[in-house]
Amino acid sequence: LLIIIRGFPVRKFLQRFSIVFFSSHFLFLSSVSTRSMASKTPVGFIGLGNMGSPMAKNLLRNGYPVIATDVFPESCKGLLDLGAQVVDSPAEVAEKADRIITMLPSSPNVIDVYTGPNGILKKVKKGTLLIDSSTIDPSVSKEMAVAAEKMGAVFMDAPVSGGVGAASMAKLTFMVGGVEEEYNAAQELLTCMGANVVYCGQVGSGQAAKICNNMLLAIGMIGTAETMNLGIRLGLDPKLLAKILNMSSGRCWSSDTYNPVPGVMEGVPSANNYQGGFGATLMAKDLGLAQNTATNTKTPIPLGSLAHQIYRVMCSRGYANKDFSSVFQFLREEE
Amino acid sequence: LLIIIRGFPVRKFLQRFSIVFFSSHFLFLSSVSTRSMASKTPVGFIGLGNMGSPMAKNLLRNGYPVIATDVFPESCKGLLDLGAQVVDSPAEVAEKADRIITMLPSSPNVIDVYTGPNGILKKVKKGTLLIDSSTIDPSVSKEMAVAAEKMGAVFMDAPVSGGVGAASMAKLTFMVGGVEEEYNAAQELLTCMGANVVYCGQVGSGQAAKICNNMLLAIGMIGTAETMNLGIRLGLDPKLLAKILNMSSGRCWSSDTYNPVPGVMEGVPSANNYQGGFGATLMAKDLGLAQNTATNTKTPIPLGSLAHQIYRVMCSRGYANKDFSSVFQFLREEE
Amino acid sequence: LLIIIRGFPVRKFLQRFSIVFFSSHFLFLSSVSTRSMASKTPVGFIGLGNMGSPMAKNLLRNGYPVIATDVFPESCKGLLDLGAQVVDSPAEVAEKADRIITMLPSSPNVIDVYTGPNGILKKVKKGTLLIDSSTIDPSVSKEMAVAAEKMGAVFMDAPVSGGVGAASMAKLTFMVGGVEEEYNAAQELLTCMGANVVYCGQVGSGQAAKICNNMLLAIGMIGTAETMNLGIRLGLDPKLLAKILNMSSGRCWSSDTYNPVPGVMEGVPSANNYQGGFGATLMAKDLGLAQNTATNTKTPIPLGSLAHQIYRVMCSRGYANKDFSSVFQFLREEE
Amino acid sequence: LLIIIRGFPVRKFLQRFSIVFFSSHFLFLSSVSTRSMASKTPVGFIGLGNMGSPMAKNLLRNGYPVIATDVFPESCKGLLDLGAQVVDSPAEVAEKADRIITMLPSSPNVIDVYTGPNGILKKVKKGTLLIDSSTIDPSVSKEMAVAAEKMGAVFMDAPVSGGVGAASMAKLTFMVGGVEEEYNAAQELLTCMGANVVYCGQVGSGQAAKICNNMLLAIGMIGTAETMNLGIRLGLDPKLLAKILNMSSGRCWSSDTYNPVPGVMEGVPSANNYQGGFGATLMAKDLGLAQNTATNTKTPIPLGSLAHQIYRVMCSRGYANKDFSSVFQFLREEE
Repeated sequence: LLIIIRGFPVRKFLQRFSIVFFSSHFLFLSSVSTRSMASKTPVGFIGLGNMGSPMAKNLLRNGYPVIATDVFPESCKGLLDLGAQVVDSPAEVAEKADRIITMLPSSPNVIDVYTGPNGILKKVKKGTLLIDSSTIDPSVSKEMAVAAEKMGAVFMDAPVSGGVGAASMAKLTFMVGGVEEEYNAAQELLTCMGANVVYCGQVGSGQAAKICNNMLLAIGMIGTAETMNLGIRLGLDPKLLAKILNMSSGRCWSSDTYNPVPGVMEGVPSANNYQGGFGATLMAKDLGLAQNTATNTKTPIPLGSLAHQIYRVMCSRGYANKDFSSVFQFLREEE
Repeated sequence: LLIIIRGFPVRKFLQRFSIVFFSSHFLFLSSVSTRSMASKTPVGFIGLGNMGSPMAKNLLRNGYPVIATDVFPESCKGLLDLGAQVVDSPAEVAEKADRIITMLPSSPNVIDVYTGPNGILKKVKKGTLLIDSSTIDPSVSKEMAVAAEKMGAVFMDAPVSGGVGAASMAKLTFMVGGVEEEYNAAQELLTCMGANVVYCGQVGSGQAAKICNNMLLAIGMIGTAETMNLGIRLGLDPKLLAKILNMSSGRCWSSDTYNPVPGVMEGVPSANNYQGGFGATLMAKDLGLAQNTATNTKTPIPLGSLAHQIYRVMCSRGYANKDFSSVFQFLREEE
Repeated sequence: LLIIIRGFPVRKFLQRFSIVFFSSHFLFLSSVSTRSMASKTPVGFIGLGNMGSPMAKNLLRNGYPVIATDVFPESCKGLLDLGAQVVDSPAEVAEKADRIITMLPSSPNVIDVYTGPNGILKKVKKGTLLIDSSTIDPSVSKEMAVAAEKMGAVFMDAPVSGGVGAASMAKLTFMVGGVEEEYNAAQELLTCMGANVVYCGQVGSGQAAKICNNMLLAIGMIGTAETMNLGIRLGLDPKLLAKILNMSSGRCWSSDTYNPVPGVMEGVPSANNYQGGFGATLMAKDLGLAQNTATNTKTPIPLGSLAHQIYRVMCSRGYANKDFSSVFQFLREEE
Repeated sequence: LLIIIRGFPVRKFLQRFSIVFFSSHFLFLSSVSTRSMASKTPVGFIGLGNMGSPMAKNLLRNGYPVIATDVFPESCKGLLDLGAQVVDSPAEVAEKADRIITMLPSSPNVIDVYTGPNGILKKVKKGTLLIDSSTIDPSVSKEMAVAAEKMGAVFMDAPVSGGVGAASMAKLTFMVGGVEEEYNAAQELLTCMGANVVYCGQVGSGQAAKICNNMLLAIGMIGTAETMNLGIRLGLDPKLLAKILNMSSGRCWSSDTYNPVPGVMEGVPSANNYQGGFGATLMAKDLGLAQNTATNTKTPIPLGSLAHQIYRVMCSRGYANKDFSSVFQFLREEE
């Protein structure tokens, strides 16, 4: 048995916004066939924030005409300069495009953009492909899919991992949920914006996969921080302890790739005063989604739930904008 | 960056008793020089239980005369037949051997065997090397080291990972704490009984390393069980979810090497109704040591502590003798 | 300083469904003035389940004509026999009554009954008083209040404590949230169905008060169970320990009124094999509401959250229908 | 059913050091018979710290000659001035007194004072009554009792609640464990130093009762803090919420007698910026004892254990010396 894991270049990762996938390209990268620009029909894009804006630009760069809108019209300016058409409402986007991508902050925004009075579904054409890349509750994704189906459209969830840097460099990872037959059509667009596209199953599965990974990540990170802190108090050298854990059954991504103890690894937030990386407040948000999802499905998640509470308290105690590995600092004795 | 990890043959592992190290030999294996049998002086061995007995036999096999004792004299029978000398008390062992290994169930036994009225230290010779392979509180190891030093002897802690099977096959891993200059002398004996010997630092460090690893292991296992259960409830295929986690930041030993969900991996306890492996009751014991150690050093271990409580409850609810990965079953909805 | 607490007759309490208030009447009971039957206008009632049915009957008994409906028309039979008028939909109720009470299982039902296609708000008359006695997320109560206000109606939340028995005997407690000026109008009706009516503040406050109380109750109960179990293991007599706690700072409702240890008190579920009382599954539901509410308001609730997880696991392990004090049994060593 | 609880004057309580008993005198106060001073034989007292010193003075005030010692001889000065005889070691005290009280910081000190080279048991006379008022692990109390019995002496544990103020005013509460026949003899002395003396059972029971109470107290306090914080976030007025909880099943000592929210009650630490009262660091110490005791008896204490971790983290984050009700502030959103 020989397993080879291609490492993740952690230093680059600091530019990222959200953590999930670090697999190397060869596993998932879809080969993008050369297409003639002329044949490309417009793609709608709704939500031009820090993430949506560079994503939409990558569609333009790949030759897709873009029809865009945002509740803050000024967000569309950069895209307008690059040749996108800017319209007034999601409904108008739906009139003009039969493939639409949405990238919004949270569930209520998604509900409004799809089912609100000027929403997509008010004007959507039959057969339109709707791809939502927001990170939201999977049950909302399912509701949107049902509503879309009633109008003859197809809805898929495709939350991303990777932050603003990855969005700019088209290096995002997409976890996709939805009807399998439509996956290829979605993949065509997503590969313009990301390096990895993973099909996860029925609608909502993309959200589910992202939530699950980030919950286990949070547990592993806090566990690693506790363990390293305990070992140090017991007199162990942190580098030696990390080495021992990493060759043993305590090994996890937080111990071997993103160690939270300053001085153990280079190129990670713990080596840089917990600047950059994935903020505690974002982890708290994702754990909130995990918590709600678990509550709604009556699934016990004792450690996930406690991890949520710990990040919640950290956000109240001045750690909101530090990388989530700063839990090591939070648990450590004050100097 | 390319890291190659040589996998652990999990199927064989089922024979093991205690989980910590699975690194392959080349990392640590000391090259055992050929020695002439004639030059070997006797080694004392105290504690001939399930683990101690095969360990002592491996010393005999390597040509070391063994002077043995146990509170239950009948335990010594097998060793007697193989040529060991059996004596009445630890004190008597100390009179006859200047290298002594102890393998005992818990701290009070260690204290008694070393400092009791018929204990080793009553008769120990100056310069004697004392190696304790019991898993106990590191602070007790330190006390024993101080007491030994007063008598001019040297004490090292060297708890093992790997169970009865590994003990029989001389495949144990030893984590060694103690004065560095004495490490080579200890290593000479330990390599007769184990495949890996790791030097961890000052006395007590071996215990500390073992406790830390097993605490993080428990956290990772429960976290993996919760996550897999949540994902399944959300409609994800367990194999696919495991694959996604393992290429992502949720990856840990419990997700990629010892997955707790039946059907995801072969050759692990979850594939065998949680038979074999490392029992919940043993994990609860190790977490109890972690808890005591953390309490005594005033170190917060929120997840480690909750993991301890969960294994404690499991032991009360019929999971005591199942493999510790059965926490997946414990958390799952009853059929 | 002398405080007198009028005790709660616990034995009767076993008939109850939901636990919150046990204060004696004199604190809150509104004096119901004698009114002439002739002057009473009809009251609408939607949701005639185990709780709603006896509540509506008490309105009839107090001389209020009742216009009723339920998704299961057969539920209305008993009420019909007592002289209520049964109609087909919430909208129809709204056409015929300007005071309407709703008693529904959960948030989605409330949303549907108020804002659905045949919902109350489709036909509600200006000035109508809407009282929702369901236990739901306070944020849904607020949404309903906004929607009602748009139609010129007034919405109040008034969740109850006390179960089916209390509903039959008009002994419920209502926690009321909504505009203070409308409180008297609500109180007129609620006092026909309950013994205590407490005004809690703006809309949603009734739900908030109920959720908060039940969360602290769950924490106190599990804490009491752990403490009693620990004391017993340490050799203390359970009755003596309860007595000591109850005169000390460990005192709480679960230790002095509803002790979870068999043999300590009479007339409580622990004296009756945890039959009756307030089921673990109902507690898990209320803790789920607390958890969602806390998550949505970014409030850390470490113990509340762990209490939720413990009741969730209990529901998976065969304790769903036992009284919530059976957590003592759950934590205890198996015989 | 009418229960009357005589209230505790909370304001005075602020002078106290340790929280357990607040029951009024009539429940337990032993009637102290008038005795002629002449008949009193000397009482030994070992450990003259902040607590021991005023306790010993109260023995003097009650006419008992005192033979005292302390590892820091200067601690004995005040007592010397009041007429006590100061000697060099516990052994010497044991030679001169047949009733000895010890008041020491922690288990290792107790072990040393009783069984060390100059310890009490080296010189203890047959029939001597040994009363240990330290707060330590009950298992150590049991060990001391066994060791004392071997020498023909009787050992009882009698930890106190109430701090320095209560010690000065002879208002301590003693929880006593030991052979019942000796209880009266112990009571004679303890009533000189305290207001309440409770017999709890066999040796170690006093410690067990104190540990149990304080664990449930910590759980109730954190639970109350979470609940009040959640209610406030949901828009409830804190005073109203406290009132509702206190008449309901959420009621506990922390909600009705020692509310942690500033502005809800007067005369408690929360009204005084969490000054005075019972410091978080002392609560963490008692929870550490509970945790160790639970671990050693294999008793699951999920909430107790998490409460311990929370106080441990608070101690690391600047709350060590604030009253333990400051957990409300710790959990609250930073301004």
